[in-house]
Amino acid sequence: MKINYANGVKKDVIKTSKIKSLGMLFENQINLSNEYYLTNNIANIHKKPTPIQVVKVEYPKRSRAKITEAYYRTPSTTDYNGIYKGKYIDFEAKETNSNLFPFKNISIHQINHLLSVNKMGGIAFLIIFFRLFNEVYLLDIKDFSNLKDSGDKSISISKISKLGKKVETGYSPLVNYLKTIDNVYFDTNKEG
Amino acid sequence: MKINYANGVKKDVIKTSKIKSLGMLFENQINLSNEYYLTNNIANIHKKPTPIQVVKVEYPKRSRAKITEAYYRTPSTTDYNGIYKGKYIDFEAKETNSNLFPFKNISIHQINHLLSVNKMGGIAFLIIFFRLFNEVYLLDIKDFSNLKDSGDKSISISKISKLGKKVETGYSPLVNYLKTIDNVYFDTNKEG
Repeated sequence: MKINYANGVKKDVIKTSKIKSLGMLFENQINLSNEYYLTNNIANIHKKPTPIQVVKVEYPKRSRAKITEAYYRTPSTTDYNGIYKGKYIDFEAKETNSNLFPFKNISIHQINHLLSVNKMGGIAFLIIFFRLFNEVYLLDIKDFSNLKDSGDKSISISKISKLGKKVETGYSPLVNYLKTIDNVYFDTNKEG
Repeated sequence: MKINYANGVKKDVIKTSKIKSLGMLFENQINLSNEYYLTNNIANIHKKPTPIQVVKVEYPKRSRAKITEAYYRTPSTTDYNGIYKGKYIDFEAKETNSNLFPFKNISIHQINHLLSVNKMGGIAFLIIFFRLFNEVYLLDIKDFSNLKDSGDKSISISKISKLGKKVETGYSPLVNYLKTIDNVYFDTNKEG
């Protein structure tokens, strides 16, 4: 789970978990790419809010409700979903600091959710950022699931570069994963 | 915005806003219907978590992170989205205690989001529960938007019963809005 902490606690987060902090950066890149797609009427894809269980709320007079006790919950679905070219899109964005992506970094709930989406005719995949190599790959959930079922514990960057598809990164948008989707899921010859 | 308060604060909510509390009940009916659809592999539609801005988090030793200051944020999209029969589904569920549903009860951001989904080929609508009459209606976002643009301030139950489509309510599922979607958006003769 990636968490958008407010400014006040960012320091603590970096202290306790450097990886998580770097993870937010990649997530922000995806979010900015989605803003670009939306602004240009290309796609409508959003990050879901982080699920939080609220326990206590105070209602100060002449002021908005203040949550004073709450906890992060485990998400039952993925971080991102939306619509592109009339199709339902659903994915999880992850990153790794080594040349391997361990399968345990994605919850079984999320894998099952993506397989369900695939079964229902949606486009379901993972986007994995290999930070050391500065390379981003898109891997269809079926390919991911087959590998996992075969008994592997992780997928290497060399294997994902063959099985998945490399995602172009640049400036507009930062992570052009819809171009990769065109290649993998749509007949791009017809799209022009 | 509908809010899922944890048990500890439910009493306060009822005290401050009875309507909001009743609203949660209808939302729960939709959530249970979605569980039914998912369990039976009919559709994969989820409620998005309520967006919360986290300001302060404590990290007690040997205990999970505790959020000690946070605020509810205004959602930029709708409460519900997912996939049904390969199509992207997006909607907002609302309710009213009178025979009128005031347009101001839906934010302009949410209307624009639904219009964008419609433009991109998704199925976008509102589900409105008229509690006094115990009747639920589905209204396509284009019809809603046209009415709003015409200068009306609200839509009456008699008008929505002609312009929209009544949703069957029962036990399995509680709110059978996918049957209504079949009628409105799919050629149900082909579906059997």
